[in-house]
Amino acid sequence: MNRAIVYTNPGTIETEVIEKPIEEPAPGEVLLRLHYSGVCHTDYGICTNVFATLPPTPKGQIGGHEGVGEVIKLGPGTTSLKLGDLVGVKWSASACLSCGNCLEGGETTCPAGTISGFMTPGTFQQYCLAPANYVTPIPRSLDPAGAAALMCGGITVYTALKRAEVKHGQWVVVLGAGGGLGHLAIQYAVALGTRVVALDVGAKEEFCLGLGARAFVDFTKFAGEEDGGEQLAARVKELTGGAGAKVVLACSSSNKSYAQAVGLLGFRGTLVCIGVPEGGPEPIGGANAGDMITRELKIFALKSGNRADAKECLDIATAAGIKTRYELRPIDSLTQVFKDMEEGKINGRVVLDLR
Amino acid sequence: MNRAIVYTNPGTIETEVIEKPIEEPAPGEVLLRLHYSGVCHTDYGICTNVFATLPPTPKGQIGGHEGVGEVIKLGPGTTSLKLGDLVGVKWSASACLSCGNCLEGGETTCPAGTISGFMTPGTFQQYCLAPANYVTPIPRSLDPAGAAALMCGGITVYTALKRAEVKHGQWVVVLGAGGGLGHLAIQYAVALGTRVVALDVGAKEEFCLGLGARAFVDFTKFAGEEDGGEQLAARVKELTGGAGAKVVLACSSSNKSYAQAVGLLGFRGTLVCIGVPEGGPEPIGGANAGDMITRELKIFALKSGNRADAKECLDIATAAGIKTRYELRPIDSLTQVFKDMEEGKINGRVVLDLR
Amino acid sequence: MNRAIVYTNPGTIETEVIEKPIEEPAPGEVLLRLHYSGVCHTDYGICTNVFATLPPTPKGQIGGHEGVGEVIKLGPGTTSLKLGDLVGVKWSASACLSCGNCLEGGETTCPAGTISGFMTPGTFQQYCLAPANYVTPIPRSLDPAGAAALMCGGITVYTALKRAEVKHGQWVVVLGAGGGLGHLAIQYAVALGTRVVALDVGAKEEFCLGLGARAFVDFTKFAGEEDGGEQLAARVKELTGGAGAKVVLACSSSNKSYAQAVGLLGFRGTLVCIGVPEGGPEPIGGANAGDMITRELKIFALKSGNRADAKECLDIATAAGIKTRYELRPIDSLTQVFKDMEEGKINGRVVLDLR
Amino acid sequence: MNRAIVYTNPGTIETEVIEKPIEEPAPGEVLLRLHYSGVCHTDYGICTNVFATLPPTPKGQIGGHEGVGEVIKLGPGTTSLKLGDLVGVKWSASACLSCGNCLEGGETTCPAGTISGFMTPGTFQQYCLAPANYVTPIPRSLDPAGAAALMCGGITVYTALKRAEVKHGQWVVVLGAGGGLGHLAIQYAVALGTRVVALDVGAKEEFCLGLGARAFVDFTKFAGEEDGGEQLAARVKELTGGAGAKVVLACSSSNKSYAQAVGLLGFRGTLVCIGVPEGGPEPIGGANAGDMITRELKIFALKSGNRADAKECLDIATAAGIKTRYELRPIDSLTQVFKDMEEGKINGRVVLDLR
Repeated sequence: MNRAIVYTNPGTIETEVIEKPIEEPAPGEVLLRLHYSGVCHTDYGICTNVFATLPPTPKGQIGGHEGVGEVIKLGPGTTSLKLGDLVGVKWSASACLSCGNCLEGGETTCPAGTISGFMTPGTFQQYCLAPANYVTPIPRSLDPAGAAALMCGGITVYTALKRAEVKHGQWVVVLGAGGGLGHLAIQYAVALGTRVVALDVGAKEEFCLGLGARAFVDFTKFAGEEDGGEQLAARVKELTGGAGAKVVLACSSSNKSYAQAVGLLGFRGTLVCIGVPEGGPEPIGGANAGDMITRELKIFALKSGNRADAKECLDIATAAGIKTRYELRPIDSLTQVFKDMEEGKINGRVVLDLR
Repeated sequence: MNRAIVYTNPGTIETEVIEKPIEEPAPGEVLLRLHYSGVCHTDYGICTNVFATLPPTPKGQIGGHEGVGEVIKLGPGTTSLKLGDLVGVKWSASACLSCGNCLEGGETTCPAGTISGFMTPGTFQQYCLAPANYVTPIPRSLDPAGAAALMCGGITVYTALKRAEVKHGQWVVVLGAGGGLGHLAIQYAVALGTRVVALDVGAKEEFCLGLGARAFVDFTKFAGEEDGGEQLAARVKELTGGAGAKVVLACSSSNKSYAQAVGLLGFRGTLVCIGVPEGGPEPIGGANAGDMITRELKIFALKSGNRADAKECLDIATAAGIKTRYELRPIDSLTQVFKDMEEGKINGRVVLDLR
Repeated sequence: MNRAIVYTNPGTIETEVIEKPIEEPAPGEVLLRLHYSGVCHTDYGICTNVFATLPPTPKGQIGGHEGVGEVIKLGPGTTSLKLGDLVGVKWSASACLSCGNCLEGGETTCPAGTISGFMTPGTFQQYCLAPANYVTPIPRSLDPAGAAALMCGGITVYTALKRAEVKHGQWVVVLGAGGGLGHLAIQYAVALGTRVVALDVGAKEEFCLGLGARAFVDFTKFAGEEDGGEQLAARVKELTGGAGAKVVLACSSSNKSYAQAVGLLGFRGTLVCIGVPEGGPEPIGGANAGDMITRELKIFALKSGNRADAKECLDIATAAGIKTRYELRPIDSLTQVFKDMEEGKINGRVVLDLR
Repeated sequence: MNRAIVYTNPGTIETEVIEKPIEEPAPGEVLLRLHYSGVCHTDYGICTNVFATLPPTPKGQIGGHEGVGEVIKLGPGTTSLKLGDLVGVKWSASACLSCGNCLEGGETTCPAGTISGFMTPGTFQQYCLAPANYVTPIPRSLDPAGAAALMCGGITVYTALKRAEVKHGQWVVVLGAGGGLGHLAIQYAVALGTRVVALDVGAKEEFCLGLGARAFVDFTKFAGEEDGGEQLAARVKELTGGAGAKVVLACSSSNKSYAQAVGLLGFRGTLVCIGVPEGGPEPIGGANAGDMITRELKIFALKSGNRADAKECLDIATAAGIKTRYELRPIDSLTQVFKDMEEGKINGRVVLDLR
């Protein structure tokens, strides 16, 4: 039997481990025995229905979108993988690979694509079906539990930095640097040769500096909306030798944090949006056209990366020794994990042990 | 003597033609006998002090930043140009070419750079000094009066399309399509193989379609803020076969226009900001992070292009037969031109005859 | 029954039309009713076994790698296409889409890939099986017979120009400009804004100029090896205003032609190799490192493009009105076509009518 | 007085230290007090007249093209530098910065450009004139003597890797890995995340591995021309897990070495030519079009990088701790240095102390 965690009451953090039959792979699919799944803040959001733009999560949804497991059965016509291969399941569960979006590398916006753990059963289970052409082979030299968290968090932050075209020596500011996305962002940014300023609450300072950040800023010590974020911007400017950030990577999920982000940029700087703000939609504060033109700024957003990004993400993790900082917890602890997330108690990532 | 147009009462559209001595070129400079200068909407803005973020324009400022003229004297040590060369003066009057911004192609954000017609005397005069290394040679096959308007408008719209990485067959929506920037944007977008939807007031329809736009939308026929621009977005979606715009080029100068722009984009679409909105700074309506992430959007802004962009802009104009639509007016007509701009009476560009 | 043309005696140009049963599509495959197939010079080479580096062609091989047809049956699990879709079959019959080469866009070098018309049955037949994920949708606005020839020739020359990063106004020299590849190369180069010098035998002059080339050079009028191609290089230099070619596109299939190619390049020029030279392997004459360093030259080679290149190739053909010049011939005329190729009698392409 | 080293008998390695008056900077120039100059293998080549394609070196030439010194006098109109600035002099002594080549980044092919130490006095002297707009600021955190060697060697190998678009985890083979260029190439390749196989004579093994190479191959242990380099290629293939090199960086200066280079490449591999082969021009062995098409190979060549490349080169050296391995020798030792070069006795670089 397949032990799976379901959202029993979407809108709350209630979950339950159930048993269900193991399914058979269709043509082009593989059946995976999952070993690990990371828990992303977005899983929390889907379980609790916080995203205004998404339809409500159905009762009984199996969440999770960062999984690593072993191929144990091949569907008819599947030749690109073999039994025993270790592979990862990503945020995008599938993409058609043939539409205009897919062909230009935008698999995460494929109109026919599906999302792991939302509408499609995800990685919070012991067995899962996946398209053979869409899973990502995991190098044997990586820790498989840590690799699970790279399948969403790692790919997303790496792709963000790649599309921002960061270069050696540039200053990158990471908002929410101590979290699941942020702590990987620090490491990828360092591996790509940049210098990182980490922003988070004070308790995360040592953690962030230990990952390679050059400087840490406890944003809670700075006046917020009252001064439009000017003191915070001044501090970042000072830390970056007067230049301001070349890239600000918004891994945080609050509109307040976004409102301050644009102010941290120097000339020709880029704000990358990857953390989905909770609450109602608000224009990004500070993103006014006149100022953006004066400073020639750029803002872009992404959900996650494509299959090539995933491969590169793992190649860099291998070459540069990037390590997910995670705590391994049992399969029946998801509700507690969501509770800890709510309370901001988690450094890095939680990974569920599904073995 | 040098006949020059000065802003006699910044904050109003008052101008006057005065006579002043012709200056001598310093080391590295050339003296130009200007033949033509385009009149950009930004000149109007500088004369009338509408830009909140800029310091007030000094009384007696000589405006203008789109000029074409002949090299008539070389300053000491100037070897890269020779007497008789026809060259253009751009929005950026100079850039150091050595700082980090310049080296990465961002000459328009050079901290040591100067701006033609703002703080630095511009092209609304018969003689002007310019750094030999910063003027742009004008191909003899181009109409020199039309080329004047390419020096800001042409370079800016071409650079916008280039940085947006437009490809053949993509849909580009031009906001303010019948204006000085817009009518060049249509032509460059067509030369680069894209399909254009032109947005402007109804009176400009024929003009825009004649320049190669595939479709025209009279935006005044659509409800504005009441419906958040939804009907307009629906119309653009329909015209683009359901896809929405790949690129929206905002050549307009109103916050209202910007507020509708993001809604016109399809998946992985890009909004390019080149028109500076008049009035107070407002976040770009619709630019909320959640929606931008869902659709993986990009927004970027620029003032104008660099010297390589300028060369390419002219190369394309030559190869593709791009023509500025302009009305030639005498040197003493600038106040009237500004009046006509205020009343939205100008199709394409006005070029002043300085000969 | 399926009427198919087979190579009855590889090493010669003998072919025969046979009848064979129509096959059933496997999972992930579609069955196509082919309407047209272009005949490429490489088909001739495969039939006559001229490529030293390839294994000998098996007797009974069904050739052809530029086909257009209709989807008439879907294999199990095929959802990305529907009955009635018009699609193209390319040089690459399939690629795994998952290996390192495929993920970086190099589908034509996929180790698991297959080649239409070589070892794998090609498009010289009325019915053919193809992977649903690897065929290319054909826009209805294109002439389907002409589109057939774009499936190899068009994609290859477009990809060559794209990877050479050609820009408006640059000079592109096409070697073998009047042939199947060359006459498409002229048109794509023009659509991308470049200026073309066409090289071929004198009889093709009018044809090439009619396609948009700025100048034509009859290379037979220039001394060859005796002077190391210097006179020819001088002529090209003259035609390009002293600069030499920015790009030389070698669509020809002789080592002699390659030996002259490097000499035609100006500073920072690029030679693109797409025509496979017949006869023994020889280093490209003129490609010596010292000279390449002095002029900072580049040489690169490709077989054809990937699926994204194919889509762009068709988008441009549609947008720019690119038309294959072809002669439609009946299914039983392939041997005669090969004979005409041998004698250099063909302008543009021959397309076989398979309806 | 200015102590300068001159080539007293070009064609031989004879040099002499002379004294000559210190010159005054012209408009746009600065006068530098040079502290250090690297000695590049190309200096040896220029002194001994080995380059067939260059005109003979004039008697009395002051060589050297890798210098670091202090700005001690500003020519008229020079504002971009100030007294006391530490700057570097590159292979390109000057470039017009305005021609087509310069504008597209190809400053080293500027027709009006000059070369340090060839026709133009170089860096083998205590005082030198240089265009203010063409020297490169040296970060104070770098060892200035080591930085001297970056001015040609560092910039060239970094630009080679940059234009080859290397990515994390790719295999880069460096030919001549223990030399002046090669030992920097290893370090830059490692800083960019790649895995390096170093090729040189056995005595350099420990040196190369100490710089970060993953593997070393003593090419003298492999049969050369007799087997067309097949055994060497097989060894590289084995070391790269069957894939072959993604990039081969030819830092060596022998045609024999080039002849083996193409064979080391895997599919879609790139050979970068930076070492100028001594002796007569020969086509690069193995660079035949048929094979290049089959494997989709690329070959490109460069002299050195531009000003932006120079800045990035220093940024990476700073960020990644790249260190030139050099031996500091007195100003009057150049003839001995050339002798040691001839005998292959130098690990890394020699730097002359000009203080």
